[in-house]
Amino acid sequence: MATVLRRAARLEFSGVLSLFSASCRHGRPYALSHVAFNDRHLSTSSKVKVDLDNSNGIAVMKFDNPPVNSMSLDFLTEFSINLEKLELDKSCRGVILTSAQPRIFSAGLDIMDMYGTSPEHCGAFWKAVQDMWLKLYGYSKITIAAINGASPAGGCLMALCCDYRIMADDPRYSIGLNETQLGIVAPFWFKDTLLNTVGHRTTELSLQMGIMYHAHEALKIGLVDQLVPEGKVLSTAVETLGTWLAVPGHAREISKSMMRKPTVDKLLANKEADIKNFVSFITKDSIQKSLGMYLAALKKKKA
Amino acid sequence: MATVLRRAARLEFSGVLSLFSASCRHGRPYALSHVAFNDRHLSTSSKVKVDLDNSNGIAVMKFDNPPVNSMSLDFLTEFSINLEKLELDKSCRGVILTSAQPRIFSAGLDIMDMYGTSPEHCGAFWKAVQDMWLKLYGYSKITIAAINGASPAGGCLMALCCDYRIMADDPRYSIGLNETQLGIVAPFWFKDTLLNTVGHRTTELSLQMGIMYHAHEALKIGLVDQLVPEGKVLSTAVETLGTWLAVPGHAREISKSMMRKPTVDKLLANKEADIKNFVSFITKDSIQKSLGMYLAALKKKKA
Amino acid sequence: MATVLRRAARLEFSGVLSLFSASCRHGRPYALSHVAFNDRHLSTSSKVKVDLDNSNGIAVMKFDNPPVNSMSLDFLTEFSINLEKLELDKSCRGVILTSAQPRIFSAGLDIMDMYGTSPEHCGAFWKAVQDMWLKLYGYSKITIAAINGASPAGGCLMALCCDYRIMADDPRYSIGLNETQLGIVAPFWFKDTLLNTVGHRTTELSLQMGIMYHAHEALKIGLVDQLVPEGKVLSTAVETLGTWLAVPGHAREISKSMMRKPTVDKLLANKEADIKNFVSFITKDSIQKSLGMYLAALKKKKA
Repeated sequence: MATVLRRAARLEFSGVLSLFSASCRHGRPYALSHVAFNDRHLSTSSKVKVDLDNSNGIAVMKFDNPPVNSMSLDFLTEFSINLEKLELDKSCRGVILTSAQPRIFSAGLDIMDMYGTSPEHCGAFWKAVQDMWLKLYGYSKITIAAINGASPAGGCLMALCCDYRIMADDPRYSIGLNETQLGIVAPFWFKDTLLNTVGHRTTELSLQMGIMYHAHEALKIGLVDQLVPEGKVLSTAVETLGTWLAVPGHAREISKSMMRKPTVDKLLANKEADIKNFVSFITKDSIQKSLGMYLAALKKKKA
Repeated sequence: MATVLRRAARLEFSGVLSLFSASCRHGRPYALSHVAFNDRHLSTSSKVKVDLDNSNGIAVMKFDNPPVNSMSLDFLTEFSINLEKLELDKSCRGVILTSAQPRIFSAGLDIMDMYGTSPEHCGAFWKAVQDMWLKLYGYSKITIAAINGASPAGGCLMALCCDYRIMADDPRYSIGLNETQLGIVAPFWFKDTLLNTVGHRTTELSLQMGIMYHAHEALKIGLVDQLVPEGKVLSTAVETLGTWLAVPGHAREISKSMMRKPTVDKLLANKEADIKNFVSFITKDSIQKSLGMYLAALKKKKA
Repeated sequence: MATVLRRAARLEFSGVLSLFSASCRHGRPYALSHVAFNDRHLSTSSKVKVDLDNSNGIAVMKFDNPPVNSMSLDFLTEFSINLEKLELDKSCRGVILTSAQPRIFSAGLDIMDMYGTSPEHCGAFWKAVQDMWLKLYGYSKITIAAINGASPAGGCLMALCCDYRIMADDPRYSIGLNETQLGIVAPFWFKDTLLNTVGHRTTELSLQMGIMYHAHEALKIGLVDQLVPEGKVLSTAVETLGTWLAVPGHAREISKSMMRKPTVDKLLANKEADIKNFVSFITKDSIQKSLGMYLAALKKKKA
């Protein structure tokens, strides 16, 4: 524990790199303007690759948003649409989330959607984050996270929404809701998702400090369920999903809903207020300034 | 964990045998009619043996409903009456629950009370399950489960209601709320009882998969408190109860009530709706069909 | 676990000594009258020593209320005032609680404020306990408990209110909410504080039995976060607080509040009823009698 705390406090930028993400688009890394955002809408390339195996009903969704699978507005929208399609598709029985990028599951929410953008854009972005969570945490089908890389902030949230988490047993990879380290606060439904997984005390410590847990620490506190060698993360996920599929599906689905519905309903009842709250927080001068400093540091490090 | 999941998915019928129970009465195993139910009322033999030691105030309740201590309507009624009597009896200070049958604590709710019976009967049966839980989970005196055999579904629930759980250290015995494996859903108050014991995440995994935990796994996740050799389960329970009796009784009782009353009150406020919900679920054609298939498989295995 | 239970039941008076505390004032140990109470107001000596290091913003509050840091009305009042001052003081960034007395962190609430005193006094005393808890559990700045001795009942509560708990690794020291052992019931907000730290099941067991946990047991169940040799408790606390100070403060503070506000609000909404409840309980003849017997036993032991 003491080691975890000490590490949490070292703001070395190799660590900070994975705190939040800033998408690198069109060879212009970290362009701090609306251009980056506008560009994205022109993109027609897919950021989420879906591969549904009709022989077993298992769909694999691979995040493919280089370099670090930033959860941009585009990415989130595409992700949620795909997730909804698979839920309606009767040939799909379960979904595995994994990354097509090396060493990173997802670096979390894209700062470029929050930095220097209009309140309207921030609001639309936040709604997309909410919709992704509502869909994934309340998903009727089985979901397994095949965590084949680092998984900070929003990346960790996505993994937490799944029914089971398998992580690459590699000391370089860590996972956690580390928003606090960037001066941002994880909203109540991020908190609830973590709390439902690791309990009250670990959540309190984790959120206050913004702790990133190494794979073996994550296993110890129950943040992930299983560690396997990186090369076996996906195959183990497929095998595990097969095991889950042997359980009577209707009863499993109702049981899942019974556990998660109260948490989902809390956000549903507060969606608008939560968006307002986020927009008012993120557009504050002090927060924008700290995001800007963070981006500058990131840029300098890359250069 | 991976092993637990894999095992949970193996629907081998030796395991399924203990998922739910079907009482074998009058040499006519699994008679799928009301006859079995009507017969029961003629029975005058006791299904729950009570032995109160006036020297120390410790009552031992032995389940004696061969072959697997099925929680039939009769059994539940007799159990609840005895529990109430002991609560009113000032010479009784604590109760130990254990089994008089070999290798089984209780196989849980009796399917014969749910399969092919009238909605009225199903409703009366469910009310008896509720009343057992309300009495046992909210019991003012000390209760200890001496789990000397397998303890699936309703058997696990009974154990969870006690203040302390001692289980036989035998790899053949397992315990868990495995209703999902039969296509049935554990109701919210079963869920709450498990959640109050092992926490949110383990409960979610446990209920979605319908996991049966081997004794040492049950100890690890806190589903039971202590393992001892089978021959020492009862004597350890008596010794432990003696330890509890040394604690000032009134303060202990208020502390227990403070912890459990909110959970008890939830069912009290929803008793009728919960019965309606159960009856409408269990009398569905699809559910009756799956219970029938289960019974047929059980019959075939026995033959 | 079995050992813990057995020990909890041994009412040896060396243990009981630290259950609750009875302040020894002016050489008249355990004076059972209002005199003791009135005397206290004349005292100008400080029961809580505060040392704020302006170089790092770390304040150390040392309990100095011999012999066992009883939480008397005076002590609580002085403690809360100091805590509030430090919260308003911008040069203070975090607070460490520790003891200036040997072998004891704090023995908890002072029985002399509850035994033989008027209902009005009991009410004023309870309000002071509430105010201490409300201030400390809801504290905006970082708090670390440097537990350099035994920490029963109210002493444990104070430690639980902190953000991090470092305890002396000494088998002689134990910690727990052991009120039940004295025939007293921990109020709901003591219970909530424990529950938020160690979860529902451990809290239920802990409160029903009034368990005192040895340092290594306390670490195992998460009641404390870290054990270090006694001589290093304070220096480790200072070092750890330094680590916490590296986290962006505003985000950390909001995260803490998000975790704790619902628990704080529960008492705020029930403050008066909780005082009434306490006064009516503690002034009961049976409870006063048992407090009296306890004090007499304590006196006899000392003599």
